[in-house]
Amino acid sequence: MVGSADRHLSPSHYDIVIVGAGPVGLMLSTCLARWGYKIKHIDNRAEPTPTGRADGIQPRSLDLLRNMGLKSAIMAHKPARVYEVAFWDPPKAGKGIVRTGTWASCPSFIDARYPFTTLLHQGLIERVFIADLEKNGVKVQRPWTIKAFTSNEKENPDYPVTVDLEHVDGTAKETIKAKYLFGGEGARSFIRDQLKIGIKHKDPIAYVWGVMDGVVKTDFPDIKMKCTIHSEHGSIMVIPRENNMVRLYIQIASSTDPDFNPRKTATAEEVQASAKRILQPYSIEWERVEWYSVYPIGQGISDRYTLDHRVFLGGDACHTHSPKAGQGMNTAFLDALNLAWKIHAVEAGFANREILKTYEPERKDVAETLLAFDNKYAKLFSQRPPAANEVAAASAQANSDHEENEFIKTFKESCEFTSGYGVAYKANALNWSPSHPAQSHVVHPNSTKLVPGRLLINADVTRVVDANVVHLEQEIPLNGSFRIFVFAGKPTTTAQALRDLATNMAKKDSFYTAYTRPDIDRVSHHERHNPHSLFFTICTVFAARRPEIEISRDLPPLLARYRDHVYADDRWDRRVPEAKACAHAKMGLDEEKGGVVVVRPDGYVGVVVALQEGSATVDALNAYFGAFCSKKLGKTQAQL
Amino acid sequence: MVGSADRHLSPSHYDIVIVGAGPVGLMLSTCLARWGYKIKHIDNRAEPTPTGRADGIQPRSLDLLRNMGLKSAIMAHKPARVYEVAFWDPPKAGKGIVRTGTWASCPSFIDARYPFTTLLHQGLIERVFIADLEKNGVKVQRPWTIKAFTSNEKENPDYPVTVDLEHVDGTAKETIKAKYLFGGEGARSFIRDQLKIGIKHKDPIAYVWGVMDGVVKTDFPDIKMKCTIHSEHGSIMVIPRENNMVRLYIQIASSTDPDFNPRKTATAEEVQASAKRILQPYSIEWERVEWYSVYPIGQGISDRYTLDHRVFLGGDACHTHSPKAGQGMNTAFLDALNLAWKIHAVEAGFANREILKTYEPERKDVAETLLAFDNKYAKLFSQRPPAANEVAAASAQANSDHEENEFIKTFKESCEFTSGYGVAYKANALNWSPSHPAQSHVVHPNSTKLVPGRLLINADVTRVVDANVVHLEQEIPLNGSFRIFVFAGKPTTTAQALRDLATNMAKKDSFYTAYTRPDIDRVSHHERHNPHSLFFTICTVFAARRPEIEISRDLPPLLARYRDHVYADDRWDRRVPEAKACAHAKMGLDEEKGGVVVVRPDGYVGVVVALQEGSATVDALNAYFGAFCSKKLGKTQAQL
Repeated sequence: MVGSADRHLSPSHYDIVIVGAGPVGLMLSTCLARWGYKIKHIDNRAEPTPTGRADGIQPRSLDLLRNMGLKSAIMAHKPARVYEVAFWDPPKAGKGIVRTGTWASCPSFIDARYPFTTLLHQGLIERVFIADLEKNGVKVQRPWTIKAFTSNEKENPDYPVTVDLEHVDGTAKETIKAKYLFGGEGARSFIRDQLKIGIKHKDPIAYVWGVMDGVVKTDFPDIKMKCTIHSEHGSIMVIPRENNMVRLYIQIASSTDPDFNPRKTATAEEVQASAKRILQPYSIEWERVEWYSVYPIGQGISDRYTLDHRVFLGGDACHTHSPKAGQGMNTAFLDALNLAWKIHAVEAGFANREILKTYEPERKDVAETLLAFDNKYAKLFSQRPPAANEVAAASAQANSDHEENEFIKTFKESCEFTSGYGVAYKANALNWSPSHPAQSHVVHPNSTKLVPGRLLINADVTRVVDANVVHLEQEIPLNGSFRIFVFAGKPTTTAQALRDLATNMAKKDSFYTAYTRPDIDRVSHHERHNPHSLFFTICTVFAARRPEIEISRDLPPLLARYRDHVYADDRWDRRVPEAKACAHAKMGLDEEKGGVVVVRPDGYVGVVVALQEGSATVDALNAYFGAFCSKKLGKTQAQL
Repeated sequence: MVGSADRHLSPSHYDIVIVGAGPVGLMLSTCLARWGYKIKHIDNRAEPTPTGRADGIQPRSLDLLRNMGLKSAIMAHKPARVYEVAFWDPPKAGKGIVRTGTWASCPSFIDARYPFTTLLHQGLIERVFIADLEKNGVKVQRPWTIKAFTSNEKENPDYPVTVDLEHVDGTAKETIKAKYLFGGEGARSFIRDQLKIGIKHKDPIAYVWGVMDGVVKTDFPDIKMKCTIHSEHGSIMVIPRENNMVRLYIQIASSTDPDFNPRKTATAEEVQASAKRILQPYSIEWERVEWYSVYPIGQGISDRYTLDHRVFLGGDACHTHSPKAGQGMNTAFLDALNLAWKIHAVEAGFANREILKTYEPERKDVAETLLAFDNKYAKLFSQRPPAANEVAAASAQANSDHEENEFIKTFKESCEFTSGYGVAYKANALNWSPSHPAQSHVVHPNSTKLVPGRLLINADVTRVVDANVVHLEQEIPLNGSFRIFVFAGKPTTTAQALRDLATNMAKKDSFYTAYTRPDIDRVSHHERHNPHSLFFTICTVFAARRPEIEISRDLPPLLARYRDHVYADDRWDRRVPEAKACAHAKMGLDEEKGGVVVVRPDGYVGVVVALQEGSATVDALNAYFGAFCSKKLGKTQAQL
């Protein structure tokens, strides 16, 4: 779409060089390839991951994969689904282990579409991305490695990055000019080392882990659940996998051991013998071992994710932690997504280059929060096992107002965080907190339950044109556009406000008209998402029953053009059983008067604005977009 | 699995010859190929359907495709989904057309998982089956045709059917010996003609239809809905399709016309001109026509589906009707499914050959009911358009006891029927009505809402081993086995009854033990569905919360062996909001005491039996299976 203008340049010029084809590199590459950028993507392995490695897709990541149209290809591999976690400990009296409790891995207080963790071998996940990349003409170049790079914006403001690449056997070399370089090379990042960016260890304790994937025969009843097992013989973590496989994590050494050696290792047979002792009185035998590895790991966060906003790092190059939380791949995906749309917004001419400065603070804060939770949770847990009533309270649906003890509070926060729904980007130019300085009286209506910097809340609605019941938050694909959700309340109440919204959006200096598609005259009438602008897709949701809505009558032409994105808020929702318009109610927007919600291209709420007659609504939207857009909008002052 | 024993025979010997690779032939072939039979499948077309033809998959058919693991391959093509039907008529005053109402195509009083019709080009659906067949080593031989056949059980009791096949250009011939021959050749069936089986016309009126698939530009607001449009210029039916396409059906001639000619035709341009007049005041232009065809059709039913229970007919060879109800492919699928499992049961040595005699009456009755509904509904509709309050009442969720007028009653029956959920096989040896002569006091508990001959009711449950929330009715794949659902009530209440069930099932002459797998000693511990017998898969559902259930403690070993099929009935269901065990409640089974439900391999309830201490439960099951099984069971007398 956008980057293709560069294709006339010599073959050694690229929009971006991406090093590493693990989850973070592939997500970045897949997004940018879809949006038309010219990509050089290399990996130093000859093939995608053949076995083992990260394999947990958290609920929010599955939403994201669905939004990209990749979920069904993942699910076609019949992954294991973890709904509950079981805890096993030594009994109060006697030997062996007993189950002390189980609880939901994504409890119902989290409004998730897919309240489970999806377990699938990383190589299969990588191949789904690689197939999508190839549809868009990008092929990962293997086995190639990066040898050197420089970045100098003064010398070459358009293509400031120079990268030297080489086949791993040294038989071929290339020098590339690029706008960006991305390091998704994993924990041992050459690019991070070259930039002399240090790693900070949150938890000074390091561990050596053994991990084994295989098919077993056992009478242990929870072999298809995620389990944390402590016994007098040591500890083990059980994670079910596709194809009757099970993954076992065993802690082989800890830096708290008196004789700690980070190079300590163990054979597969030793790990199996250890697992057999830990699982007593249950038996376990291996029919097949698919993968076995031992690796030392500590909690660490990279000091910077970029130095010059041209060379970026993401994924394991920026944060490492124990495999227990199953967060590696998910955090990597969200690093890449966060960076992808910002690069697109800048390179497509929509946003100021300044927005690239939000990548590091947004994503570093998430990594720090993740590690802090991980520590806090582990510590709390090691003090005493939770009582049954605490487990029940922690898993209960209602976000009750009862006083909660530290354990329950931490557990809940931890669940929200590990499910991916807890990510909360702090206030900045993209996420307007209620106390944003440019706040007008229409910004962030009091009642709203939406929080800028957090995900849009899930809701079912009925699409007007074809009466399909749909997931509103999934209706706009990952197309790099801002998502404007006009919750339009009652058609009779908001008719004038909608007309005023359209009239003011149509004005020459509005955020919307300022970014009209250059090819507007040649757009097909079948275009659903971007008929006017490549930077915005608009959904309108009425608090009415579907048959009562007539698109040509109830919407001004500008909004009616998005006819495939007009919805009736007429589906019942168990979370707001008394509401008449459940989507409005879940968002905390007035069922009569509605409101406008701007969602960033990555799904996080940017700003919530009241829907009012007159120009105030569009004035506020102009102010919001004006804070980071490349053009001067309406009466606002650009500010960051 | 079963038919493979025949593979040592000469290549000209097959279990079955299937003629025609449309929906009915492919469904039959796919089932039998999965169950290990040797199949000769021919079709006289060089390629699968390239464009057009049937394209509506009804809700129950989608359940079936999911049960076969084929649904995601169908949905990957992004079919259109019809949730509602719109009715357009001339206005009371003035010209043009106005919408008089819309209603759900599968209203919520039907408990459907997928309450919509799936619209996808028949060729894409055929290819999904063909890909599955090829995985099982069956390739459709094209373009080949059938030239002659004979069937003589006295001469050759094992392979009584002889079939002469020929390449359509006459360059090659084959003579095949087979156990069965199936004619799925469509309305002009050579096999039916050779058997001299007549066609009865229910409705003597014949029609000529024009059908056009294409991409249009229009301001008609319901172009993405299914619409029935009547205007002063004629009538048209609109059906949305995948890829922005729309199908239009136009009635070109009717035998009630004074100058009726069944050969009457119309050009694509004439049909487009006619559509333009009918849609006024809306405009419509074609960007592309993918397919256009004119064909005469009348309602007809074949007098017989078989003469000797060796040569069978199914699909359009047996029943033709107007395309309006979108039933062709769905009825074809269910014809094939009904025949497939019965052939399997006989050829695998489980059932008496007599059960093949149930194919014709079961499926012919469905076809007759379908055509009768079609007529009744059309007639009622032509008398007067329904009033708005009738539409509302007809679509309302509750199966209310309010008096219903003829229109509403017919509408409801019609919806149930066309969704596929209304199929009700009459009482016979396979479907034991409450008044079955062999009835004991445990057969068909009073409270149950299950009806023998109808589908098992849908219900969500939690699988015990991995805490996955699942659709109970989908838990057993289409494996050709009878499905025994033990609703086990409260573990404390039914402990003895479960032990007695297992003890009596384990007896030498029980239905269960009589059909033990011959390879029982070599069965893998990973086998989930058929560890003991190829003819039965057992599910146990407790009315308890998942963490309260301990498989090794609460189930006798025989039932515990099906550890992947043990469930907790602990999910809330809006249809029985007050129930503690919703699946038990939906089936109308006691939440304390449970009950045993036998479901035929095709998903229809066979018999419901109380779960009692002592031998009565297994005695009743022995009596049920003894009525059609090949071996003498328990104390029962074989009877049909």
